[in-house]
Parts: sequence; structure tokens; C-alpha cells
Amino acid sequence: MMPMKQERIILGIDPGLANTGWGVIEQRGARLSCLAYGCVATPASMELSRRLAKIHEQIGAVIERFGPTCVGIETVWFGQNITAAFATGQARGAALVACANAGLEVGEFSPKQIKLAVVGAGGAEKTQVQYMVRQLLSLDREPKPDHAADALAAAICYTTHQGLEGRNEVTS
Amino acid sequence: MMPMKQERIILGIDPGLANTGWGVIEQRGARLSCLAYGCVATPASMELSRRLAKIHEQIGAVIERFGPTCVGIETVWFGQNITAAFATGQARGAALVACANAGLEVGEFSPKQIKLAVVGAGGAEKTQVQYMVRQLLSLDREPKPDHAADALAAAICYTTHQGLEGRNEVTS
Repeated sequence: MMPMKQERIILGIDPGLANTGWGVIEQRGARLSCLAYGCVATPASMELSRRLAKIHEQIGAVIERFGPTCVGIETVWFGQNITAAFATGQARGAALVACANAGLEVGEFSPKQIKLAVVGAGGAEKTQVQYMVRQLLSLDREPKPDHAADALAAAICYTTHQGLEGRNEVTS
Repeated sequence: MMPMKQERIILGIDPGLANTGWGVIEQRGARLSCLAYGCVATPASMELSRRLAKIHEQIGAVIERFGPTCVGIETVWFGQNITAAFATGQARGAALVACANAGLEVGEFSPKQIKLAVVGAGGAEKTQVQYMVRQLLSLDREPKPDHAADALAAAICYTTHQGLEGRNEVTS
């Protein structure tokens, strides 16, 4: 059994201007559990800077409420157009400012790294990722919306890439 | 002569991850003057979220110091690649959150709109824009770095696109 003192709270973010998914997990040794997840939705009718401020504010509120020390976030994915990359970039910037201001360690992962960490296959389907997120976090159902599931997957990826201090040490 | 009560302070921002230019101008009727300009530089060696937090913090400090009520900012420009658009988007998001939190009105302008407002020609060269920024603001020299000049140009563009209240009314 792994020592229980090795625990931490990890935030995951799936940034997007219309929908920014977030999820908070707790890691105790090898055991993961889900504390909360959700999605910050901003309507297209809202003025751009207000949408960004809302993302910044609500991610800040999640951090304040659950007190994560680190955050996993997806890097840009390929195949999207330049307008989408610019919009996502702005949402990501707004969210990351909230993380930096709270002193969180940031782990950035490619979609492939996240799939590999969650499913064990870099080319896994979205539905497989959602299924495994549910299994790994012992959830009653798959988290919705997809943005929240993707955020939880990024948080899970963080646990495999950034070890707990002394995690790999032999405990005598 | 235009009534002097019609005055306002306008911020301009030229967002970029490595360099975010800013400029503050004062508009009194048709007369423009430059209050300050500068550039927030963040080294590539700095962690991404810290770079974004620095942009957010320093633009916030400029707003607090000069008290603008509105901001002009360039939209995405074409011709850059998806990685650059994503990086610029993040910097823009960080800066706009600072603007929104301070309640600034945001005016977004295309490069063409800015050139048209400053030079009178949508296809103007960068050097022409810099020259006219200097002339319009009665500066001793052209503002450096270019990012600051571009930010001042965005602020000047704001004055032509978003009229002062009652600006077009006939004063009896």
C-alpha cells in the first residue's frame, strides 16, 4: 500500500472561448478520485473581453474553492483553422492567468500524450477517453459535457507525467 | 473650436507573447496627445503561464496608472501561422482580461482599419504608420519599439471609429 501522505489536488482545463471545461481530481498515491467538474460557457452574444473575464473569474473561483497545486492543460491541437486557434488561444490565456496568479504548476500535454496516459493508446477515440475517465475516477456516469471529460483527462495525464515527490522511491 | 469637456483617455494594445506593446493617448475633441507608451517583454525562458500573468499584471498596472476608459486592439492578422496565432491569442486573452476587469470599452480593428485611420490608406507601409503616429501625437521622435507604435496606432484608430458622445452634434 502506498503511503497516504502523498496526495495532491490537480486541476484539468480544456480551454475554449464558447466552452472551457474544468475538472478537479485528488491523487493519493496511485489512487485517483474526482472532486468536481464543470464547464464555463460564454455566449457568442457577449462581448469578447467579458467572455474572457468570465473564464478567468470562474477558473479562479474553482481554484479558490478546491485549492489545486497544479494544472494539466492540452496544447493546441492540429487540424483546426487559424481563427479557431486564435479564439482558443485567448480563452487559454485567460484561464492560465488565473492559474499563474494562484501559483499553480502547469503541465502542458499534447492530445496524444493525454490519450496515451488515459487509454494507453495515443490514437484512441474520444469515446474511449471518456469511458476511461469514468473508470479511472470511479464515476457513476461519464462526465458531461465532453469539455469537462477532456479537462479531467488532462488532469489524469498530469498524474502520470509529473510524479509526486518521492513517488518512485522505494519505501523501506 | 470644439468644446474641451469632450475628452477621454484611450489605451492601445498590440498583443504578443514575447512583446506586448501598449500606448495611452488623450483625446480632447479632435486633438490627440500621447501620455505614455511602452512594451511588456517576456523571455521565452519564462514559463508560459508566468509570461501571460506578467502581461496581465503590467497591462493592469498601466490601466490603474492612467485610467483609460476604452481600449483599441488589433484583430488577428492574416498570413501568420497557426502556432503564432495561438501564442498571440493567449497574450491577447491575458491583456483583455485586465481591460475587462477594469471595465474598459473594447474596440477591435483590422490592420486595414488601423492603417486607414492613421495614414488614410488601408495598404500603408509600417513605416508610414509609424511616421503618422509621431505626427498625430506631436511626438519628438517615432515611438520605439514598433510594438508601442502599433499600440498607439490602435488607440488612434479608436478615436475615429468610436465617436465621443455628441461629437457629431452641431454645437449651437
